[in-house]
Amino acid sequence: MKSSRLRFRLIAEDGSARCAWLETAHGRVQTPAFMPVATIGVVKSVDPAELRSVGAELLLGNAYHLWLRPGPTVVEKAGGLARFTGWNGPMLTDSGGFQVFSLGSLVRVTPEGALFKSHLDGSLRFLSPEDCMTIQRQLGADLVMPLDVCPPADAPEEELRQAVNLSVEWARRSLACPLAEHQHLFAIVQGGVDRDLRVQCAQELMAEDFAGFAVGGLAVGESKEAMYRTVQLMADILPADRPRYLMGVGDPWDLLVCVGLGMDLFDSVLPTRNGRHGTVWTAEGKLNLHGAALAEDYQPLDGTCDCPACTGYTRAYLRHLFRVGDSLGWRLASLHNLRFLFRLLEGARQAIKEGRYDEYVAGWRDVLQQPGGARVPGRG
Amino acid sequence: MKSSRLRFRLIAEDGSARCAWLETAHGRVQTPAFMPVATIGVVKSVDPAELRSVGAELLLGNAYHLWLRPGPTVVEKAGGLARFTGWNGPMLTDSGGFQVFSLGSLVRVTPEGALFKSHLDGSLRFLSPEDCMTIQRQLGADLVMPLDVCPPADAPEEELRQAVNLSVEWARRSLACPLAEHQHLFAIVQGGVDRDLRVQCAQELMAEDFAGFAVGGLAVGESKEAMYRTVQLMADILPADRPRYLMGVGDPWDLLVCVGLGMDLFDSVLPTRNGRHGTVWTAEGKLNLHGAALAEDYQPLDGTCDCPACTGYTRAYLRHLFRVGDSLGWRLASLHNLRFLFRLLEGARQAIKEGRYDEYVAGWRDVLQQPGGARVPGRG
Repeated sequence: MKSSRLRFRLIAEDGSARCAWLETAHGRVQTPAFMPVATIGVVKSVDPAELRSVGAELLLGNAYHLWLRPGPTVVEKAGGLARFTGWNGPMLTDSGGFQVFSLGSLVRVTPEGALFKSHLDGSLRFLSPEDCMTIQRQLGADLVMPLDVCPPADAPEEELRQAVNLSVEWARRSLACPLAEHQHLFAIVQGGVDRDLRVQCAQELMAEDFAGFAVGGLAVGESKEAMYRTVQLMADILPADRPRYLMGVGDPWDLLVCVGLGMDLFDSVLPTRNGRHGTVWTAEGKLNLHGAALAEDYQPLDGTCDCPACTGYTRAYLRHLFRVGDSLGWRLASLHNLRFLFRLLEGARQAIKEGRYDEYVAGWRDVLQQPGGARVPGRG
Repeated sequence: MKSSRLRFRLIAEDGSARCAWLETAHGRVQTPAFMPVATIGVVKSVDPAELRSVGAELLLGNAYHLWLRPGPTVVEKAGGLARFTGWNGPMLTDSGGFQVFSLGSLVRVTPEGALFKSHLDGSLRFLSPEDCMTIQRQLGADLVMPLDVCPPADAPEEELRQAVNLSVEWARRSLACPLAEHQHLFAIVQGGVDRDLRVQCAQELMAEDFAGFAVGGLAVGESKEAMYRTVQLMADILPADRPRYLMGVGDPWDLLVCVGLGMDLFDSVLPTRNGRHGTVWTAEGKLNLHGAALAEDYQPLDGTCDCPACTGYTRAYLRHLFRVGDSLGWRLASLHNLRFLFRLLEGARQAIKEGRYDEYVAGWRDVLQQPGGARVPGRG
């Protein structure tokens, strides 16, 4: 069943970087956009009003996790994932292909689907691309991903090739599955950092009518050079009139680089996971909230930030929360890191609109780039 | 050093129940009031704005815990506990006598103070009543409690008697310790459920100029009958023109009973601890959020409640949060239980003002009273 065309309206370009409006039935989203990860229907420790207050417009859920708990029927009867979680806004569900291959204990992949053991209770589970679409139809997110085969980063070429072939076949079969009128199916390009496989995969998928294209299989251990090179290749090939989604990337410098290469959507557990572990990004670099150095530091985390953590509390108090292990600390640090990324992208969008994106990125280089970081392809 | 008199203005009475305004330098509080417990400077998982939004006016911190972490100097340099925690409102600090005797491994009590091992690292610590006042002066809460000796509920009479004598001596010595101008020292009446010891302890303390009187050593395992009887005895003796604080009581029915007996202030970890463990109070009784029965229950926790959990989420979603162990569940359930108590007390204050408190309590009996619950002394 064909759903109506996803509206994706470019409003500014600067080099390969671009700004657009992505319009869903649950609201519109400015791109480049970062999606906080609500794997199992909650951005850990954070509530929807708080997410909105720091600038979130689009959330990501995970079909694999939600299939296991609470089950798609529970979510469907609640009126879909956006209503079930209280977010009531635009959402994307990842298929969970990555989770099947990383979390579960994989038993066998056949053209029919994947047989694996649940990471929760070890029970044997079978997931086909068609099952995955049924689950995501029930979850009801606006943007939907097909089940894909995700080999490890160091897989031999033959395994990568088979993964590409099966992922393409599964994506085609997913396209034939019914979705609700408001839902739109993306394709996921695989192929590791192999140039030929990436090109082949992208071209085969582009022959079909997908609403957008995701770049999967990156940020899984390859070098930054290889990742940036692959992103650039993808951005050069994938159609300009549809959203390009770089999966699993949330490092602030990587975001800036990949926006510069033409990517529109991003997701990662990095801001929230780092936050829960007491590491926050600031305008002056990373800060470790476990450090005794902060015991009597009564400054905000980041004097330039307007998030709840920075406007309401001192470093000393946040350090205390981490020391006593209170989840308010996890929440505040998660919100701060999310706000950091949203502000970074707000600045990026503004810079793109004003034709000074290179300059904007250069201004962040000293703070964000890892020592010995990779050269940005196509950039100075 | 004498601080200025604490303002406590009675505005309504109904039988022994009363409503008053308690005025502190950080704001005023309507009594009867319940204090959420921020033992170590945070009401677990909840933030100050949320506490205020559900009706909190007065928070409790614990001198013993805050002495160990983060240390009173850290709090003092932050401008006091109210500022350090971001609460910026009225606070009371308990001395931690109860914690020294229950959490720590007590080594020796002498007239000088208590020698014990820290519950955190086993280090040997000594705390005198004077130390405890110094710590609380640094913490800067509006209301301050003296160090007291807290024997177990089943202690023999001689041990109870010694505890009373030492607690009275320590309270007198505490009165001689300097506090900041805005701080007010309460006394704590001990004596278990022994009528004579309670009367003796109260009379000796009432001979001194304390800002208010707390009833300690209850809700520690004695029968409800014995607890209510002791509370009634205390309410009959303690001066009517000062606040009466019943320590450690937070069961909703106990609150109603003890407000009826003339108590003004209460604290307990019950609403937040129960909430974190997935038990919530509702207008129809207790609800267990771990129950599979709620899996597809799309009602709010309590249809009569206006808290964030009830206005934003379904039972099914909250059950899901507890199933996956997310701290958002702990927070929402804590806020709901706090809101339940605050609404219960809002109703109580209104009923007292309108001279229908007995009727109000009777209306809650079927929902709140435990099966086989104790008869309310002095009530029908």
